[in-house]
Amino acid sequence: MSTFTAINLVARPDGGPVGPHWFEVVQKERPTVGAGQFLVKQTHMSLDPAMFGWMSPDTESYIPPVALGEVMRSSGIGEIIESNHEGFNVGDRVMGLLGWQELILSDGQGLNKVEAPLPDEAILSVFALPGLTATQGLYSIGKPKAGETIVVSGAAGSVGSIVGQLAKADGLTVVGVVGTDEKANWIVNELGFDGAINYKTDNLEQKLAELTPNGIDIYFENTGGPIQQHVFERMNTHGRIAVCGMIADYPKPVPTPGPNWIPMIKKRLTVQGFAMPDHFGEVPALLAKLTPYVMQGKIKHRTHVLNGLESAMTGLNLFFTGENKGKLIVKL
Amino acid sequence: MSTFTAINLVARPDGGPVGPHWFEVVQKERPTVGAGQFLVKQTHMSLDPAMFGWMSPDTESYIPPVALGEVMRSSGIGEIIESNHEGFNVGDRVMGLLGWQELILSDGQGLNKVEAPLPDEAILSVFALPGLTATQGLYSIGKPKAGETIVVSGAAGSVGSIVGQLAKADGLTVVGVVGTDEKANWIVNELGFDGAINYKTDNLEQKLAELTPNGIDIYFENTGGPIQQHVFERMNTHGRIAVCGMIADYPKPVPTPGPNWIPMIKKRLTVQGFAMPDHFGEVPALLAKLTPYVMQGKIKHRTHVLNGLESAMTGLNLFFTGENKGKLIVKL
Repeated sequence: MSTFTAINLVARPDGGPVGPHWFEVVQKERPTVGAGQFLVKQTHMSLDPAMFGWMSPDTESYIPPVALGEVMRSSGIGEIIESNHEGFNVGDRVMGLLGWQELILSDGQGLNKVEAPLPDEAILSVFALPGLTATQGLYSIGKPKAGETIVVSGAAGSVGSIVGQLAKADGLTVVGVVGTDEKANWIVNELGFDGAINYKTDNLEQKLAELTPNGIDIYFENTGGPIQQHVFERMNTHGRIAVCGMIADYPKPVPTPGPNWIPMIKKRLTVQGFAMPDHFGEVPALLAKLTPYVMQGKIKHRTHVLNGLESAMTGLNLFFTGENKGKLIVKL
Repeated sequence: MSTFTAINLVARPDGGPVGPHWFEVVQKERPTVGAGQFLVKQTHMSLDPAMFGWMSPDTESYIPPVALGEVMRSSGIGEIIESNHEGFNVGDRVMGLLGWQELILSDGQGLNKVEAPLPDEAILSVFALPGLTATQGLYSIGKPKAGETIVVSGAAGSVGSIVGQLAKADGLTVVGVVGTDEKANWIVNELGFDGAINYKTDNLEQKLAELTPNGIDIYFENTGGPIQQHVFERMNTHGRIAVCGMIADYPKPVPTPGPNWIPMIKKRLTVQGFAMPDHFGEVPALLAKLTPYVMQGKIKHRTHVLNGLESAMTGLNLFFTGENKGKLIVKL
């Protein structure tokens, strides 16, 4: 191909649904590959809730926002189709922040070779951002111990489903919060969670009490929303809360208040926010922790595949409607 | 004396002011001192905000509530007036949870001898619960570094005033939140704080922005109230919040909501509640940390002394009105 498609961000989130009016689809010339460079043809692109943060103008976030007029940021996986770089050969698979585009010229910086004999979709679902995030938050903040109880919100999501399965494999009682009965069924019957709460239809306080008779030691927060207060009230002494995502509140002009802090003292809780970019230096250690669970078949995943680069522009809405079933991936 | 006075708790906090109707003043026989025992005559008793927790029926707190009909719990200092214990002699000063009573029969458990050549009031103000709490929270959770900015609420209180002075001695910019101009003046001109905010009269957002131009790295929370949200919004990346007290919210039937958790992620904040009873094993290390600051004259204090055991029953209200000037101590 002599040209390729890229999608630039041209507007900031406005509280309404994501749509093509936020983006500009452009055709670009295929770049010339210089010395020490190679060209990647992206095959699969990951859609993640973190993207809403990257699109927002807030300069205080953990990673600079995408500038207007620039290619939208995303992680992805691709194959090298041309190379003048001695460390990267044609046919190698690489993973990294490839962005919303078909071709990427690179000198290798920030990209990692994918050696694992797993399909692209599995790599993006388990070993990319979701698995690293789940492993980092669960072990560094959650500090799980066999016999404890963990509640995971967004439990059928790409991060939450891995957190729950890791905790289950470690001998914890695992309760997931989801937004559909289909997801509840999946996390309990396929992933082995001990219980599920449908936040849209269940009586949250009552169901949570039933499923966590010994209280809650760890909360892995991916969503925010009303479940947060109920979980907070059932936290045990010295409980740990990892705050990974607040998708329910991202689109709101005025964020919902959080819990009062009196229980922080009474129960000596720790609430800690985190984001993977702080921990990229720990990726080898995180992969070393995660890989055995995957190899022992303890981490299942499912993917929700959209077709074609342009499907990303509306696909992001699935995070808000909760209609995605599994890790959102765009196949190019 | 052949009898002594004690005060029992007979009612739970009801949202109204503390008063004699919560208590019962009783006369007891002077106990007989058996083998391995000694008798303490309490000279000074400490009043602390933590007492509201101890009086409440909540069984989830860090220390069991005081049972109705039992002597009210408090820490204090006294002199041994009779002893059949080889480790404790008549004339020794001891400190511990002596309770609201004039005489205490003890086998030594939970009591510590006071060797420091300082008056009782100074011991209770600096080396007892307030100083230990300040040292524990500031260093274990706050992790102060020279050049950082710390905000302390309840800054003229027994804990807050020590936190601020320790941080100042360590080279931080220290801003205190207080409820009167007299207290603001005291912490700035006597204790050396860099700035003070009167939460009752200042424009909180504006004054906080003026006093913390580089944002806030550490928040030491003693009070709750509206200042919390404003401080939370100005926290810097990787900021730490030690939650020590929420006096503004203790009397409320429905606690005020706290901040939304989105900034926890964006700034990777850690919010941690703590209570000294978890750390009694660390007391020697905490005293070793605190003592040099005191000996170098870097920790000033002032006491607000009430006279007579029965003054405690209404004295506790001073925590809510903010009318106390310095560490509240009852002189027996």
